[in-house]
Amino acid sequence: MSPMPEFTLSATVVAPYGATVERVRDLLANAGFGVLTEIDLAATLRAKLAVETPPQMILGACMPALAHQALQADPRAATMLPCNVVVAAERDGRTRVEVFDPATMASFSDALGEVADEARRRLSGMMRDLTGDQEDSDAARA
Amino acid sequence: MSPMPEFTLSATVVAPYGATVERVRDLLANAGFGVLTEIDLAATLRAKLAVETPPQMILGACMPALAHQALQADPRAATMLPCNVVVAAERDGRTRVEVFDPATMASFSDALGEVADEARRRLSGMMRDLTGDQEDSDAARA
Repeated sequence: MSPMPEFTLSATVVAPYGATVERVRDLLANAGFGVLTEIDLAATLRAKLAVETPPQMILGACMPALAHQALQADPRAATMLPCNVVVAAERDGRTRVEVFDPATMASFSDALGEVADEARRRLSGMMRDLTGDQEDSDAARA
Repeated sequence: MSPMPEFTLSATVVAPYGATVERVRDLLANAGFGVLTEIDLAATLRAKLAVETPPQMILGACMPALAHQALQADPRAATMLPCNVVVAAERDGRTRVEVFDPATMASFSDALGEVADEARRRLSGMMRDLTGDQEDSDAARA
């Protein structure tokens, strides 16, 4: 198999799930992103399939000025909006935060390079803020 | 510039925006997909940036069984859920429908190949149903 491109920014923190969801909301706001959508994935799978999975939330993060710029550069960008920020409970009191890497957008459309760079800069900063005060955490791959 | 991969399935139909939103909802349901999220993009941009853009909606389509299969195959798949189906008003009474191509998921993760194939088969069929009764439409690229 050929190596496949990374498509997420990811970090695992030593903090409970619920507190991490709230912390990510705050850090996204600090980085300029509102949360347009929220999907409680575990609740959805329980309701629809009667399966139990660890708590997991998908937050749809959007910075309207960047979204507008992206749509003007390439209308197909709408299919990659908002930017998904996933918060998932792991074992041993750890929580994983995983973001769809905006650089991926740029890999599909040269016109999206500039806006993807700006979104990535902000979301990478958010991930550094998330892990910065955690001695025992994986570094964000950003 | 090197050619960049397509990352959407797209079609333009000769039908008004509002009717197309409803038709896409029905066709998604027929294809097994529920709509988990709805973003009225034009309303969001108007509210946040005071800019006027043509009507545009992002429907977050999800088939729970496929989502569960994807998460088990590669947890990073959550960053690409739900599958965005964009409905956008164009000129002259036309409406564009554009779907994030599930095949894109498979390009990032071999483990997602099977589930991406199934999602693509269903969404391609939805796009064919959408355009099938339209003489004057672009064929879906699916």
